[in-house]
This record gives sequence, structure tokens and C-alpha cells, in this order.
Amino acid sequence: MNPLILCPNQIQVLHLMSVQSYINKNQERFLEELIALLKIPSVSADPKFKSDVFAAAEFVKDALEKAGAENVALCETAGYPIVYGEKIVDPALPTVLVYGHYDVQPADPYELWESPPFEPVIKKTDAHPEGAIFARGSADDKGQFYMHVKAFEAMTAQNALSCNIKFMIEGEEEVGSENLDLFVKENKDKLKADVVLISDTSMLSLEHPSVTVGLRGLAYLQVEVTGPNRDLHSGTYGGAVANPINILCQMIASLQDEDRKITIPGFYDDVENYSSAYRENLNKAPFDEADYKKKLDIEALEGEKGYTTIERTGIRPTLDVNGIWGGYTGEGAKTVLPSKAYAKISMRLVPNQDHKQISKSFESHFKAIAPASVKVKVTPHHGGHPAVIPTDSVGYRAAEAAIQSAFGKKAIPTREGGSIPITSLFQKELGLDPILLGFGLDTDAIHSPNEHYGVKNYLMGIETIVLFFKHFRALSDK
Amino acid sequence: MNPLILCPNQIQVLHLMSVQSYINKNQERFLEELIALLKIPSVSADPKFKSDVFAAAEFVKDALEKAGAENVALCETAGYPIVYGEKIVDPALPTVLVYGHYDVQPADPYELWESPPFEPVIKKTDAHPEGAIFARGSADDKGQFYMHVKAFEAMTAQNALSCNIKFMIEGEEEVGSENLDLFVKENKDKLKADVVLISDTSMLSLEHPSVTVGLRGLAYLQVEVTGPNRDLHSGTYGGAVANPINILCQMIASLQDEDRKITIPGFYDDVENYSSAYRENLNKAPFDEADYKKKLDIEALEGEKGYTTIERTGIRPTLDVNGIWGGYTGEGAKTVLPSKAYAKISMRLVPNQDHKQISKSFESHFKAIAPASVKVKVTPHHGGHPAVIPTDSVGYRAAEAAIQSAFGKKAIPTREGGSIPITSLFQKELGLDPILLGFGLDTDAIHSPNEHYGVKNYLMGIETIVLFFKHFRALSDK
Repeated sequence: MNPLILCPNQIQVLHLMSVQSYINKNQERFLEELIALLKIPSVSADPKFKSDVFAAAEFVKDALEKAGAENVALCETAGYPIVYGEKIVDPALPTVLVYGHYDVQPADPYELWESPPFEPVIKKTDAHPEGAIFARGSADDKGQFYMHVKAFEAMTAQNALSCNIKFMIEGEEEVGSENLDLFVKENKDKLKADVVLISDTSMLSLEHPSVTVGLRGLAYLQVEVTGPNRDLHSGTYGGAVANPINILCQMIASLQDEDRKITIPGFYDDVENYSSAYRENLNKAPFDEADYKKKLDIEALEGEKGYTTIERTGIRPTLDVNGIWGGYTGEGAKTVLPSKAYAKISMRLVPNQDHKQISKSFESHFKAIAPASVKVKVTPHHGGHPAVIPTDSVGYRAAEAAIQSAFGKKAIPTREGGSIPITSLFQKELGLDPILLGFGLDTDAIHSPNEHYGVKNYLMGIETIVLFFKHFRALSDK
Repeated sequence: MNPLILCPNQIQVLHLMSVQSYINKNQERFLEELIALLKIPSVSADPKFKSDVFAAAEFVKDALEKAGAENVALCETAGYPIVYGEKIVDPALPTVLVYGHYDVQPADPYELWESPPFEPVIKKTDAHPEGAIFARGSADDKGQFYMHVKAFEAMTAQNALSCNIKFMIEGEEEVGSENLDLFVKENKDKLKADVVLISDTSMLSLEHPSVTVGLRGLAYLQVEVTGPNRDLHSGTYGGAVANPINILCQMIASLQDEDRKITIPGFYDDVENYSSAYRENLNKAPFDEADYKKKLDIEALEGEKGYTTIERTGIRPTLDVNGIWGGYTGEGAKTVLPSKAYAKISMRLVPNQDHKQISKSFESHFKAIAPASVKVKVTPHHGGHPAVIPTDSVGYRAAEAAIQSAFGKKAIPTREGGSIPITSLFQKELGLDPILLGFGLDTDAIHSPNEHYGVKNYLMGIETIVLFFKHFRALSDK
């Protein structure tokens, strides 16, 4: 045997080893680049951060170019731009479309952050003994989509990119991806791919690696209850004039009954009911209730009667008030009977609920239950349809194989409570089931003060993504 | 008849005429001085205005000295000082103790003020065709207590002060007068008087002058509901972990039943029930429901079943949420399941409810109704006992006579919904029934944006106070 002639499989192994070595050599820089990106407060919900959101888009554009992508561009939308970039190795090869988002959630309340949200620091935690990067957006989603940029850089640098790749990184995920719909519809050819790969979810733990196979939908609305036309003295008018805060509390309380069922007419009509076998299987995922309660410092869990915690966060819809305000909220006491009270209310939806229909039902119900003494305004914010990912696709099997190679363990399929509204868009418009290969942990405090992302999760994520490309190519060939 | 010898009554008439003429000549300056006082943002509830509250105390001290008061001093307390001053014409004469307060309510929400709250402007309104001063504290209580300073100045300047006078102007009325109690107890001799005269209430209108003969008490508390130990992602945890805002809304909603009865056990035990004759008489006060609703821009009134609006705001207790907050309250959407939610809740009390007892009952009830999934903290803010003023005293008759002289009409006795906690203190510690001779109107927006006080009310108030002194002296002599 001529030792200079290697079979394709041997070549791939050598390539993988060199990619891994490249990642190891450059991991400090990979971290530094992410930290630079995390310093940009790209809060899409708040107009005062507008220039920062654009700056983050530019950062991503530059990063893709430096990593070796071609045709990189900021694609304008009615809102923030979508960063596109690609590398077509060979049109005959399978194509992976990577989706992510460079915008972040608002960082409020700032006073609860142990370090400023846009000044990243690395600290050890119980869940991350090797350190985690604390910053808004570290896990959701900058730290996660940036793994793809670095995995791509490593594969390209080592001439080991085994599939074509397309990047689509948007800046409005945290405000409902409202302009993505049109962009995807208008660019079906450009976005043509064999799989959509997304890292914007969590796994159970590095010891229990998992892949998300279900996401809840979302309907998010703001309500405004108006009583008198101005703030009144609660002594002079109290007792005779409806107080919009009291009324709003009553209306919110009435949206759920004693069993925590949502009382909006028709709300459960389209909810998929799962077989007891399915539910039994779902409940096999590792879950330690005592530990869960301890970590949240709560005495008791609470949710829809007749369902477990895994079911309540995975396959059942919810209704949460995300914010409420009205009257005097400063220091001390003010005896005001306010003119207005407000709340932000969201519902997590499950297959086959339609978020637009649910928003409409909410609005008519909320107006119907308002007493004559107040006026009610309901403003839908945004929404997204729930999604279920099949586990028999080439993409899912490639993800399973990548996790098996990287972690030495079989991936656990999980239903996640959050929403990534665009998953159903990709299913509908591109005919692609997204693969939700996330590396965050539930304890990473996304959307909360002190959000963080494990350094090890970041590096293992890059490694797993490289393996995904290898397996996706191999499984596509068969 | 020797024309140079006047009888005492004739002398008094001449004196009164000269006092009235003095007021007329100086009314521009009287207004300017009040405007200067209104420019000081003496918000006692908010520590950031501390130096302004002290500045207002100094202003009052100077004003009393310039008006001719003696022994003027800032009396230190654990909080803001009480301004004292006196003029003892003759120890044998009756003494009037004037109470008022130089602190004001917070001006929030600032954005609803048509002109800045501490930059007074005079504008005409429907209720004040001759103009009203728009500024925080204009009616409550700077504009009202300052009438006494100017009436005193006018009487002193014209050598027409017919009773001794003592001033006690405090700086903590809007935060519960917590340090006044000790001051009054320790200074009973110094404060010895025959009547307490207070202008810190409203009258029905200048066409229907009235005197307040009843005030509600107050119990004011802040509640804090804690769910998980940190803000959570509502997708990951929603449905399984109790949301403290949802829980707070339920708890608040449950504090009143469908008839708007308060559900706290024992709440109504001590409430005085009035005879149908009493209630009938009370309801004779002029009240135009259509106009009342129109001015507030509401379709329907709402309150305790079985009572009229006059009863609901006069002789029945209430429960109002004065402020509520929790979660994300900024622009756009944030899918947070917050750690905490808060509310400020106050109850107006009627004879013979004890505000301390009611605060205790509230606290135990609120804790009792909290589900195991949350923790609850209740912090009493302040309170005051309800008060009823007899209408057969020399003081009340002097007020009636003063109104008759000034307005040419009989004063209507009214029960007011607000609270002046110190009235019951004066009854208990000094044995004096305060006379509540207020000149504000219910539409003056006290405790609200665009608070104002009629220029004519201010000037007629000064005139009426001068007449009160005349009649109090005359009726005391009999």
C-alpha cells in the first residue's frame, strides 16, 4: 500500500483533526471577538439603541467577510438589516442555511446586574465551573450564532468545508422578526438550502446533551385600561370612580381559573392533545423537582392542573403578565386614583394554535370583560406560530451524530417552552425543517439580569457544528 | 352724639374696612409671594427633594416673621421641621391655632403637566373664570395655609387682630405626619388654644360655600410579591413557575367582591352605620351625576352596592391601588417572567375604624391569601384615623358666620373623602375640634398633574379668615 494515497474517509479525518487543532489554537481570539460583539448594546426593542443595532449588523458583516464568506451584504428591510453571506464550495454539494440574530433583549432592570450588561466578564458558576461570559446576548443569541461564524472560519481555513453554507443573521428576533417574512418570501432562490441550522435554544446540560424538537408559539399584547380622564385624589373620588388598576387586576385575574386554565373562549380549541404514550416518553427526560425549586428559591411549583412541569413548559399553552404599571411607583406614598393602568401580556402557544387567531380572541375577550366604568385598548405586539421538528430527517440525524461524536452520548429530543417564530416561516416558505442545535442552559438567565453563556459550551458548540457539517454531508451522500 | 366717640362695634367695622382695603391694595404682592413659595419643590415623599423641603420651611419662617409673628422658630423633629410662630395680643383673649403644611405631593407623572409643576402660571378654567394658579401644592396646601399668613399680616398691619394666633405649619403631611404626634404631645402648653383652624380641604363651589365636617381616615401599605429568585424567560419557565404579577393581580382582585365590598375579615366591624334620616340629609347636597361623569369622561360610576356617590366618598370605606409595577415596562416587548411585583394600596376609613387595626388586618389577610408559590412582604406606609367635626361649637358657628358675611350664603356642612390624619390628633391631645375651612374645589386636581388653585378662592379665603377671627372673638365673648 502506498502510504501517500489516502482514502476519502482518511482525508476527512485528517481534515477534522486540523480543524480541531485550528479551533484550539485560536480559541482565545474566538472568545475576544465574541466579547467585542457583546459590548454593542443592540437592543432592538428600544429605539434609543438604534445606532448600536446597526453597529452590530456591521460587526457581523465584517466578521463573515474575514471568516471567508462571499457576497456578504446588509440586506435592508423596513426595520433592521439582515446580514447575508455565503460560501458555495460546489453547487452539487448539500447546502446549510445558518440562521441567527444579532439583536438582544432589553437589559432592564439594570440594577440587578452584578456587572454591567454590555461590559462582558468571565466568571465561574455552579453550572459553568470552567467559566461563563456574563453579558446581555451572550447566550441569546450572539454567543450562539457566532459559533457558526467561527466553525465556518475554521473549516474554510483548513480547506475542510464539506457543504455549501449560507448565513442569514437578522436584527429583529427579539421584537418578532416582523420583516423577515417578506425577506424570506422575496429571496427563496437565494436562500435555497437543504437544511436550516439554528443555535438559539438550550440543551439540558453538557452531561445530557439534547436537541430541541418543539418550540412554543407566542402571542404578545399590550393592554391599556383608562378610568377617569386624569389622575384623581383617591380621597375625594375613591369609592365612587372605578380605579383602572383595580379593574386591570380583576380582568387579568379572570383570564385564568382555579386550575390555571385560560378562560378566553376557544383558547384550547386547536391545542394538540398528546397520547399518554407520548406524554410518558416526554416525562422520561431527567428532571429533579427539588433541585429545580431550590435553584429558583420557591416553595411550590404552580401551573395547569393535570400536567407535569415538563408538560407545562413543553406541550401546554400559558398566559403570563410580562409587565404591569400604573399610578404612583416612586418612593413613599401618593394617594392617587390614576387615570390609566397598563400591562404587557403574552401567551405561549402550542401546536396547532394560530397566534393571529389567539391574539384576536384575546382582544375581543379582554374588551368584553371590561366593565362600563373603564375604556380598554389592546395593542398586539408580535407573535409566532408553534413548531414541531421531525426527528427522522437527514438534518436531525446529522445533529444526533454530531452530538454523539462530540459528547460521546445520544442526544435527548426535548420540547422547549420558548418561541423562535421564524421556525414555522422556514417550514412554510422554504420547505425546510430547522435543526435546533442549541448549546445554552436553562440556567443561563437569558432575558434576565446576569445572562451568561458557558465558555465550554461556546467551544464545544463550535466543535459540534463542524461535526454536523461532516455528518450532514455523509448522510446526504447516502 | 359726639361723632368722635365710636362704640366698639363701630370701631370693629372701621377696622374691618381698613383690613379689607389693605388686602385689596396688596393682593398683587400676596399672589407674588405665594408664587415664590410654589416654586420650591418641597416633595416630602422623595428624599431627592430634601434640601427643597428645608428651603420651604425657611420660607415660611421668614414669611411669618415679616407678617408680624413672634417667637418664630423651626422646631426640629426626626423628619422635617415644624414652623411655629405666634402673636399674643392679650392672654385673656381667645386663641386660634392655625395648622397647615408646606410639603407637597410628588408631581409625577411630569409628562402630563401642561406647564411644569414648579413653575407656576395663572390660567383661566371653566371652574375659575377669573384665573387659577397652576402648580403642585397650589391648593394642597401652600395656597391655603398662606391665606392665613396674609390674613394675619393684614389684621396686624391694621391693628385689627381680635384674637391671639399661633401657627403650626408642618412639612410631613403628605407622608403621614409621623413626627407631629410627638411634637403635639410634648408641646401641649405651647399649643394651648381655643380652636384649631385648618384650610386644607375643599368647598363645593364659590356659589355653594361649604365647611367640611367629616374626613375619612387612611391606611396605606406597600406590598411586594416574590416568585422565583430572579427574572426568568417566560418561554422556558412560563406555565410551571408562578408569575408574581399574575398572582398579585389575583390577590388584589380578591380584596373586593362583586358588590365592591372589601373582603378583609373584620373590615366593616367598626364602620359606623348611619340612620336613613342622616343619609337622606347628606344626599341633599347638590350633585349632578351627568356633569360629574362628563367632567371625568367616564360612562359609568362604580362603587359599593347600595350607596350613592356622596355616601361612597363620604361615609363608606374604600380600597384603591394607588400604584402597581413589575416586570418589563419599557418600549416594545420583553418575554420576562419577573421575580417580583409591587403595589401601593390604600384604604379610606370611616368612623370608628382604627387605621392601625385595619393595617394589621390587611397584612394578615394578604399573607393568608398568598399561594405557596410566592413570598409576600407587606410594609405599612402611614395612616390616620377618620374624624367627625361637631357643628355646634363656637368655632363651627364662627366659620358659618364668616361664610355668611363673605359669601352672603349659608355654609353647607359636607363629609369629605380625603384624610387629614392630624385632625384626630388635635381632638385627642389638645381637646380641640378642628374647623376645616377649606377653599379648594374638587376639580382643582390636587395630587394630580395640573393642580391649581383659584385666584378668587385665594383672595376670598383671606377675607373669610379675617371674618372668622371677628366672629370667633364675638361668639367667644358671649
